[in-house]
Amino acid sequence: MGKKKFVEAITSRDEDFARWYTDVCTKAELMDYSDAKGFIIYRPLGYALWENIKNYLDQEFKKTGHQNVYMPLVIPESLFLKEAEHVEGFAPETAIITIGGKEELQERLIIRPTSEVLFCNHYAKIITSHRDLPKKYNQWCSVVRWEKTTRPFLRGSEFLWQEGHTVHKDEVEARKETMDILDIYNRLGEEFLAIPFVLGKKTEKEKFAGAVDTYSIEALMHDGKALQSGTTHYLGTGFAKAFNINFQDSDGVVKEVHQTSWGVSTRLIGAVIMVHGDDSGLVLPPYLAPTQINVIPIMQHVEGVIEKAKELKAKLELLGLRVDIDDSDKTPGWKFAESEMKGTPLRLEIGPRDIENNQCVLVKRYNREKIIVNLDDLADLLPKLLKEIHQAMYDAALKNVQANTRIAHTYDEFKELIRTEPGYIKMMWCGKQACEDKVKEDTQATARCMPFNQTPIGEKCPICGEEGKHLVYYAKAY
Amino acid sequence: MGKKKFVEAITSRDEDFARWYTDVCTKAELMDYSDAKGFIIYRPLGYALWENIKNYLDQEFKKTGHQNVYMPLVIPESLFLKEAEHVEGFAPETAIITIGGKEELQERLIIRPTSEVLFCNHYAKIITSHRDLPKKYNQWCSVVRWEKTTRPFLRGSEFLWQEGHTVHKDEVEARKETMDILDIYNRLGEEFLAIPFVLGKKTEKEKFAGAVDTYSIEALMHDGKALQSGTTHYLGTGFAKAFNINFQDSDGVVKEVHQTSWGVSTRLIGAVIMVHGDDSGLVLPPYLAPTQINVIPIMQHVEGVIEKAKELKAKLELLGLRVDIDDSDKTPGWKFAESEMKGTPLRLEIGPRDIENNQCVLVKRYNREKIIVNLDDLADLLPKLLKEIHQAMYDAALKNVQANTRIAHTYDEFKELIRTEPGYIKMMWCGKQACEDKVKEDTQATARCMPFNQTPIGEKCPICGEEGKHLVYYAKAY
Repeated sequence: MGKKKFVEAITSRDEDFARWYTDVCTKAELMDYSDAKGFIIYRPLGYALWENIKNYLDQEFKKTGHQNVYMPLVIPESLFLKEAEHVEGFAPETAIITIGGKEELQERLIIRPTSEVLFCNHYAKIITSHRDLPKKYNQWCSVVRWEKTTRPFLRGSEFLWQEGHTVHKDEVEARKETMDILDIYNRLGEEFLAIPFVLGKKTEKEKFAGAVDTYSIEALMHDGKALQSGTTHYLGTGFAKAFNINFQDSDGVVKEVHQTSWGVSTRLIGAVIMVHGDDSGLVLPPYLAPTQINVIPIMQHVEGVIEKAKELKAKLELLGLRVDIDDSDKTPGWKFAESEMKGTPLRLEIGPRDIENNQCVLVKRYNREKIIVNLDDLADLLPKLLKEIHQAMYDAALKNVQANTRIAHTYDEFKELIRTEPGYIKMMWCGKQACEDKVKEDTQATARCMPFNQTPIGEKCPICGEEGKHLVYYAKAY
Repeated sequence: MGKKKFVEAITSRDEDFARWYTDVCTKAELMDYSDAKGFIIYRPLGYALWENIKNYLDQEFKKTGHQNVYMPLVIPESLFLKEAEHVEGFAPETAIITIGGKEELQERLIIRPTSEVLFCNHYAKIITSHRDLPKKYNQWCSVVRWEKTTRPFLRGSEFLWQEGHTVHKDEVEARKETMDILDIYNRLGEEFLAIPFVLGKKTEKEKFAGAVDTYSIEALMHDGKALQSGTTHYLGTGFAKAFNINFQDSDGVVKEVHQTSWGVSTRLIGAVIMVHGDDSGLVLPPYLAPTQINVIPIMQHVEGVIEKAKELKAKLELLGLRVDIDDSDKTPGWKFAESEMKGTPLRLEIGPRDIENNQCVLVKRYNREKIIVNLDDLADLLPKLLKEIHQAMYDAALKNVQANTRIAHTYDEFKELIRTEPGYIKMMWCGKQACEDKVKEDTQATARCMPFNQTPIGEKCPICGEEGKHLVYYAKAY
């Protein structure tokens, strides 16, 4: 009975993946829609996921010498127009304040879609000498990009993110920063989200407006589509030229700075849902999970049961584990279903008979395996078990990427694969946009990235027959 | 020489307090102005202060069962108009988005000046039963209020804050929440900011638009003006009525919820500056300070000096202390001035002779006291010293409040005091707005709050001669 509400309410992944996704978003109480289209409400569980991602990254950023700042929400229109390519990329999707304090504004204010121009304007003021370099700033904020089609966490008119903006004395140092951050993002996947990313360089067509080179982390969702999950950009000196960011080097010569920018957003929550979730709801990797262990007392009206449950919770929290106890008046079945829907990695059941036998039942969310554990062994076992679960979830996701990465030697093969098989397709590419455009037009698949491992799989671009210069991962993408 | 740039650049407090304030804001590199009027840039030190305040409060909120969420940046105009009093309070200072994605919007979007209506709209959807109560949500975000006159941290078109919004089954529980949060804010002052607040209830005139009762923490600045530093509101059932937030109680009866809201903002940074700062710049209380100890090597070209400084830093960081080392090529004098300007609580000087004698020099920022310490005693001494400094700074601030809180028995006395003496003036009040208005009109002073200790100082309202019902703290205020 208790389980019904949840089990019935959610669409199965294979029946309708898009609906399954929004079902999980709402039924797991990650988010809710607001009255403004494309603007979502991050409910406690959804926001806690973001907080945990933020804490992980913030520590890594600070360890590597980055400092947090906060730039204004708005960009005066004249400032926004300063770097041409960048404007072209973002102007179509801006939201604009035209009224303030009941009066028409003299200059319209753009709500930041990203803050390159704000950072550059500030950097131009505060950087004069090589002693001022490098500057490695980051900010946590929300940005607004006007989107016609929106989906929770994946594409919204407002989203939460971090944007790093750094300034360096030369190209080598700036390019190193771009790679160092990509490595931090990759480790976030490996150590925290249990998501194996494919790393590589974006094509000219897909790169960030205003960047020299863009690198990305790409994740493969359960439906075989790819999700760009984070990017780092080497900006070269383009912004430095537009904003006059120069410094006097130790040799006395005035030089332009080299810049980077990089970011990940609440999109990562969408990635976690679509990589790990199943037909019972969310499945959270243990280090990300706000609640790692859900203690559910069985026959809780029996004297001593709730007390024992609370005692266990207190004991486990001392180990640094994140534990919740559900002693509400719902049925155990209902509680199980709720705990599954919300993706809590471990369920700990304890009832009168368990207490007699000094044991409890542990159920792993990701594979539903049930084990009976002596209470004296819990403290030793749990940290190991969480580690095992993390690794198993990562391995499963990696296996899925490997099983769904295919090679196309001819364009016909490519078209057949994209029609019949989910996932990535590797194919050589000549480097010309015409061929890239043709793939998109014919198949809707896009070049996700050119992976760092460029071991060729052929000599020619299968589309035009010219020299195959790059190995590309293609996929349909979110 | 090195010290000159800083010492000369800053106005003295007694010469021009307002200019001293903005000098500290910019020279201590807390903030910078942006190209959009009233929108400031939080530079690393300024933002780090906010992060530390945030970490302190976030822990306290979570310990007491609050959950973080994130509501949209924008409020559709029709939703904004739902609670009449509230609208009246905020409508004049809103910023409005009228264009999105190059098109005129069908419905204008207000940038949140505060998020009561967003929370209420959400609560109406998710609350149906007594089992759903209480809901204790908080969010960290920025809000926009169009201000004509702006000052860094004190009054800006955009500021950072937290806003708590809670829903309860009855008035008793909601009023308790209002007081519990006020207590957390007060402890933030005592334990973290070294600021003694005056706590009390706001008058009808000064309360929050839409609240039944507003309580505040008030701080006294060095110039004798008061700064409202945080507020908590008991909202009663007004919003519940406007937004239809009802629940079925355990007795089967459908009832309206009782609500609260509460917030503190980056204004607290302004309070820290103006309570503790001096003519050499910022003075940070040690638990708030992002850097607690600034290690400055003397004669750093001598072999072993920088190594020793780094060794000390590493050793002290193991104790959980926040330590920076300045081994740049600036002169020691310059470094001292910079460290003073930025308010670092302790400066640790170490040179070749110190190393020979196994000692170092410690200089306390707040009173410039210099002590020589054996290096073996450092680890024991420093935590105690930081505690002592915190207490001494708090005590000095409290003494200042006590010395500058005066009593007026007659209105003439009041007017004379407000003209000649800085600080708070206590006076009885009949409770009528006419008298409150008269004080403001005649003297520019406002009723800061009615303190919880209401021991009367007279029988009549000195203005109208009617019964003196309330004891009020008046002051000129920011």
